[in-house]
Amino acid sequence: MTMYEIIEKKKHNVELTTEEINWVVAGYVSGSIPDYQISAWLMAVCFFSLTDRETADLTMAMARSGDMFELGLDKFCADKHSTGGVGDKTTLVVAPIVASCGVYVPKMSGRGLGHTGGTIDKLESIPGFNTELEYDSFISVVKQAGFAVAGQTGTLVPADKKIYALRNATATVDSIPLICSSIMSKKLATGADGIVLDVKVGSGAFMKTEEEAEKLAEAMVRVGKLAGRKCSALITDMDKPLGMAVGNSLEVIEAIETLKGKGPDDLKELSIALAAEMLFLADKGTHDECVKMAENALVSGKALERFGKMIELQGGDIGIIDDYSLFAQPKRSMDVYLPESGYICGISCEKAGMVSLKLGAGRQTKESDIDFTAGIIFEKTVGDRIEKGEKAATLYTSSDCDIEEIARECSGIFHIGKQEDAVKEKIIKKIIKGY
Amino acid sequence: MTMYEIIEKKKHNVELTTEEINWVVAGYVSGSIPDYQISAWLMAVCFFSLTDRETADLTMAMARSGDMFELGLDKFCADKHSTGGVGDKTTLVVAPIVASCGVYVPKMSGRGLGHTGGTIDKLESIPGFNTELEYDSFISVVKQAGFAVAGQTGTLVPADKKIYALRNATATVDSIPLICSSIMSKKLATGADGIVLDVKVGSGAFMKTEEEAEKLAEAMVRVGKLAGRKCSALITDMDKPLGMAVGNSLEVIEAIETLKGKGPDDLKELSIALAAEMLFLADKGTHDECVKMAENALVSGKALERFGKMIELQGGDIGIIDDYSLFAQPKRSMDVYLPESGYICGISCEKAGMVSLKLGAGRQTKESDIDFTAGIIFEKTVGDRIEKGEKAATLYTSSDCDIEEIARECSGIFHIGKQEDAVKEKIIKKIIKGY
Repeated sequence: MTMYEIIEKKKHNVELTTEEINWVVAGYVSGSIPDYQISAWLMAVCFFSLTDRETADLTMAMARSGDMFELGLDKFCADKHSTGGVGDKTTLVVAPIVASCGVYVPKMSGRGLGHTGGTIDKLESIPGFNTELEYDSFISVVKQAGFAVAGQTGTLVPADKKIYALRNATATVDSIPLICSSIMSKKLATGADGIVLDVKVGSGAFMKTEEEAEKLAEAMVRVGKLAGRKCSALITDMDKPLGMAVGNSLEVIEAIETLKGKGPDDLKELSIALAAEMLFLADKGTHDECVKMAENALVSGKALERFGKMIELQGGDIGIIDDYSLFAQPKRSMDVYLPESGYICGISCEKAGMVSLKLGAGRQTKESDIDFTAGIIFEKTVGDRIEKGEKAATLYTSSDCDIEEIARECSGIFHIGKQEDAVKEKIIKKIIKGY
Repeated sequence: MTMYEIIEKKKHNVELTTEEINWVVAGYVSGSIPDYQISAWLMAVCFFSLTDRETADLTMAMARSGDMFELGLDKFCADKHSTGGVGDKTTLVVAPIVASCGVYVPKMSGRGLGHTGGTIDKLESIPGFNTELEYDSFISVVKQAGFAVAGQTGTLVPADKKIYALRNATATVDSIPLICSSIMSKKLATGADGIVLDVKVGSGAFMKTEEEAEKLAEAMVRVGKLAGRKCSALITDMDKPLGMAVGNSLEVIEAIETLKGKGPDDLKELSIALAAEMLFLADKGTHDECVKMAENALVSGKALERFGKMIELQGGDIGIIDDYSLFAQPKRSMDVYLPESGYICGISCEKAGMVSLKLGAGRQTKESDIDFTAGIIFEKTVGDRIEKGEKAATLYTSSDCDIEEIARECSGIFHIGKQEDAVKEKIIKKIIKGY
């Protein structure tokens, strides 16, 4: 077997065997196959895609490239994954809901590179919060709080780290089987029994059309099933930022508000849907029963209680739940006004992400520090009427960025039009069931 | 400009600008663009090809990556290039013919990696012959003999060396614009005024169909014209080995026989056609006149005389022209017989090449030594009748290979059938004119 022959096969759209795919992944991780052969192969994969069988084999080979966690817990373990969007803090709401209903959520999460941090960056905005847990402590937090959130360890799916970095350098990112294997290899390696995928679609998502999003969702659900996991996917809207807050501590606060039964409708609706799906995979009842269970976890305060427990066990200051002033406070803020009155027909996710990044909420490079205080609070959203001179949003930062310039830029992210065009998209577009 | 963007463009079949192509080639040669990005780009080029303009730009950028020779000679300089086949020794016949008709042929040639050596390897089978000429000596030999054959210098088209090695490792060889740019960049850099391309087609050639061969020929002729050179291409048969000899000294001897007016018909016909085309590009007359001129160069012995002059000036023993025993002699030989009587309908080029390689006539790796004495002399060719027990070929070698096993293998390269199927292919299939 040579890498040359394997590239040649894929270049002529010939299906690779399981042995060949295992050999490619093992060879790349060990260093015996060089970058330049893998990148040529990845480009051929972008052109001809992979069959379902090849995709599943690639995903499993990647998952096995590092530690495969067998959690060995006494309850069903559920995990969720979002393909990413602006203002997505659902994990912070969903995990405590699910945990409070008797299903474990052992969440290993990545750091973000982009407009805001990832889930663990967001949580680190809580004073004292520790995301670097040893495996035993991680499991101990899961047992006590029902869920835990920790950073991924170095030995989790090294194949994905290496392949992802290469894809990022060689314009081979946008391939459904490659995206699928990257996401699912990590989910499979972390050992969850059930996996719910939140596949975002829209201008602010990687998948721009519902068709593409469905293809990716179907591929991931299929691989999950083939690997013996319960799996389903929600196709959800990312044509505007999710909720009203974008940033790190700002998003944690919005998540806590939602756990208190307040929070914005879209975030609440999506969190309940994702949580209910996870409970359903855990055989907690019918779909309707699971939705009611999730709603009740918010109303009863049980989910909030779990959130507090997790914060406490991971060293965070639980005082922040009732006193948001315990978060580091932004040094500066600036209100955003629009140049005309009308109805808000759209909010550009991509531009909102850029504004957030410029304020300091995200990382421009892997080494950048995050300004936890930075971000955007929207005062108005799609469907709302706004008058000229009425506040549309407020920007926060502790950095020395040009906040006035950024506020001008932010005013341009709102698309103003007629009432009949100011229609909110349905947040949940479709469910791809793996059962 | 980033390589990522350039890969992305080609991946979406967007035409690259001249500046972008120049930047890619310069960046790869300087080392600022890594292998893995170039290989992904090459794979995208294999899928979407390049436009004529891009191909010409790539070829020129590659040609300019090293020294561009300006020969500054007082006569028209013609060059020829063959895409390669088994038993192809035409340069040794064509160059002296053309030189004897008043056109210079300053030939910089490569070493072969494959079933036999390249032109300079073949010439090195002549005792004393030196192919490592300094530039001034090279020009001096051209002026005195009308032609010279020297190895390529290290500074000739470094971009091609690097890109070709990468293509060879990443299954990105079979792309018309990439093949075209590899061949033509070297031809343009060596400064010939006229270039005749011998594009082989058939089972023993890189191009398996006439359609592919024509596409490549047209691409090369177009690039040659765009670069201001006179250029044309012959599409020629490589469904069976050319001539009756395969090897290094064996092929030099067959070339000398041809220069003496003997030699096999196919080699003679092809050599005259190529030489006539080169003379035509040099404005030596009409096509018919150029053919007659070339034929006369053989009949009159003028071409042979030029050949001797070149050998002498490059340090070789000219005694070999009349006494082939002055070549190193093979230590062993073995006759090849066929298992049945009949007509020879075909001789497999690929298998003949493999036999030749196993006898030691070629290089398996860049570092291998060539056995100049090794090779095959065919006694029968396509169209001939052969009786069981009649000799089909003789193998020669000085190595300790298993010659009996190789003789058995060689007997399998002949395809025996009925008289009506034993038809010789026309050697010259088509001329692609660049004028």
